[in-house]
Amino acid sequence: MTPALKNDLFLRACRGEKTERPPIWIMRQAGRYMPEYQEIRKKTSFLGLCKTPDLAAQATMLPIDILGVDAAILFSDILIPVEAMGMELEFSEHKGPSFPQPVQSRMDVDRLLVPDPITHTGFVAEAIREITRRLSGRVPLIGFSGAPFTLATYMVEGEISKDFSRVKQMMFSEPETLHILLDRITETVIRYLEMQIEAGINAYQIFDTWAGSLSPVHYQSFALPYVRRIVDSLKRYGIPSILYVNGSCALLEDMVTAGTNVVSVDWRMSLSSVRERVPSGVAIQGNLDPVSLLGAPEILREETRRILDEMKGRPGYVFNLGHGILPSTPVAMAQYLVSLVQKGPDVPMPQRVGRV
Amino acid sequence: MTPALKNDLFLRACRGEKTERPPIWIMRQAGRYMPEYQEIRKKTSFLGLCKTPDLAAQATMLPIDILGVDAAILFSDILIPVEAMGMELEFSEHKGPSFPQPVQSRMDVDRLLVPDPITHTGFVAEAIREITRRLSGRVPLIGFSGAPFTLATYMVEGEISKDFSRVKQMMFSEPETLHILLDRITETVIRYLEMQIEAGINAYQIFDTWAGSLSPVHYQSFALPYVRRIVDSLKRYGIPSILYVNGSCALLEDMVTAGTNVVSVDWRMSLSSVRERVPSGVAIQGNLDPVSLLGAPEILREETRRILDEMKGRPGYVFNLGHGILPSTPVAMAQYLVSLVQKGPDVPMPQRVGRV
Repeated sequence: MTPALKNDLFLRACRGEKTERPPIWIMRQAGRYMPEYQEIRKKTSFLGLCKTPDLAAQATMLPIDILGVDAAILFSDILIPVEAMGMELEFSEHKGPSFPQPVQSRMDVDRLLVPDPITHTGFVAEAIREITRRLSGRVPLIGFSGAPFTLATYMVEGEISKDFSRVKQMMFSEPETLHILLDRITETVIRYLEMQIEAGINAYQIFDTWAGSLSPVHYQSFALPYVRRIVDSLKRYGIPSILYVNGSCALLEDMVTAGTNVVSVDWRMSLSSVRERVPSGVAIQGNLDPVSLLGAPEILREETRRILDEMKGRPGYVFNLGHGILPSTPVAMAQYLVSLVQKGPDVPMPQRVGRV
Repeated sequence: MTPALKNDLFLRACRGEKTERPPIWIMRQAGRYMPEYQEIRKKTSFLGLCKTPDLAAQATMLPIDILGVDAAILFSDILIPVEAMGMELEFSEHKGPSFPQPVQSRMDVDRLLVPDPITHTGFVAEAIREITRRLSGRVPLIGFSGAPFTLATYMVEGEISKDFSRVKQMMFSEPETLHILLDRITETVIRYLEMQIEAGINAYQIFDTWAGSLSPVHYQSFALPYVRRIVDSLKRYGIPSILYVNGSCALLEDMVTAGTNVVSVDWRMSLSSVRERVPSGVAIQGNLDPVSLLGAPEILREETRRILDEMKGRPGYVFNLGHGILPSTPVAMAQYLVSLVQKGPDVPMPQRVGRV
């Protein structure tokens, strides 16, 4: 039984409803910038953390307790289901995630499984149940998955890429191979999110982080249809959905047609223009520049005020950053941001922290 | 005396005139993808190449002879005038350019010079005169400079950055320091481009490559005014100017107000929407995805045709890539692209090159 929610601002905003104030959560809100996270992380590897429900639940709870955000997000990684498809996954402190044997050919694609989510990633469902217990209705829990194109970039590039030239080379040389890969990822993601929903998440976000590297015509062919299929398949559960794309200025109208309740945008466009372009009824999430949390508190206050002003009177708005919070962010600045959004510009300002 | 131009398609297109066909040149057209360039490069370091007028002229001529593009662009690097401002500059094969002592404080900014361009970078003027001799009017010669914000990113980050967090941290913590830095760079760039114009270039491009990492409101404050000042200062020379920004979808209308003859855009937006947003009279340059040159020739042909169709009937169009050509590009594909634009879709297709 899911306990009744004490704070449902986030879910109501996702549904496009008017709220007393915008809810706030922060992408990567449980992360390296928090000493308490570093403590948990010392006990195991990054993947070990993702795969140990108790630790993942501990990490998930940190920003609820320390920042007081209006939503929790499952602590995990978008590449977890990709590993379950049969790809060896490595994480290094320095380079981030990598696949030592990236997908290079049709044969590589054919070898990939559509894994049973419980068998291969049941620890995620367990973590969700554990988090739900610990939250006991304080705030909603967001689940998530990478989108097919974004997952494909990692699978084909093998590591974090500057120009996505390998996956786009596949697109420009063997588009049918890429479509088969995307199809297989899509099936995997649908089952993976079904498992999360059945375990108790209250909303889900699809991270199509790197789809903004595509021209609109390629986005329409290699990214959007797969996200749409996921959203359609999960509609029957009736929980809110969010689509995030980094660098989505030219894709916004297309993104809306994916059918999620919320579109989440980065800081490279103004929310005044976003609200003009996104039909009412579709909620908006974003879009503070994460670097603003490394600057002066009085400038952060101005940036926050500007964004709140741009969205004033627009029902269905979730405050967030435009991308993940940076590891060098002072916790006091993240706390200050949450207070600014929840309580207004007169909350006490933290001591100015020296430049990192 | 400048010889009369035999092919002035590029200059006419820059001025917004109707041309028989779009001219084409390629960003980084003299570069690592060409074996002939690698040969020249063997003789010296990258900076040595930039600083040896004869070698810089040789490199500049390669794409004219090998690809037959409609414009030459000075072989140089945007960081040359920055080194002249008093910053030690290093190039490594692996990491690209770096400044071992990046700008970190107001004191660092105060130490920077506005160098006399002839004294410190006279080799660039010499290279331009040498190239002009060798071109003897075959095609126009484009000079260039980095824009103040983009140069500041390198100076503050110290090396190529993923998220520009250092320069933006300065923006969010000490905006006045960044403005003073930008002001000093602007003065340097104006003198540097004046020298290039007086040495004989026929047009110039300002690379504000990384300004697309800014939100519109910060672009309007930390990038645009400085570019506008440069363009205003150089207007009296009457040669065409181009402003390039990578990821400029949300900035396009602002870019136009910088006052260049041409705006140059990347592949992340469709040219159909660009031509709607850019007033007639302002020319457009771009926007093929550089990765399309690594794919199948028949797909490159389709991509090229789509772009030409999108710009059909729009006077003032210069075909180019959306960003620099990639080092792994097969020369045959670059040649094919030039032929497609100059002669149409029926030119012979190169053998399909294996995936790199």
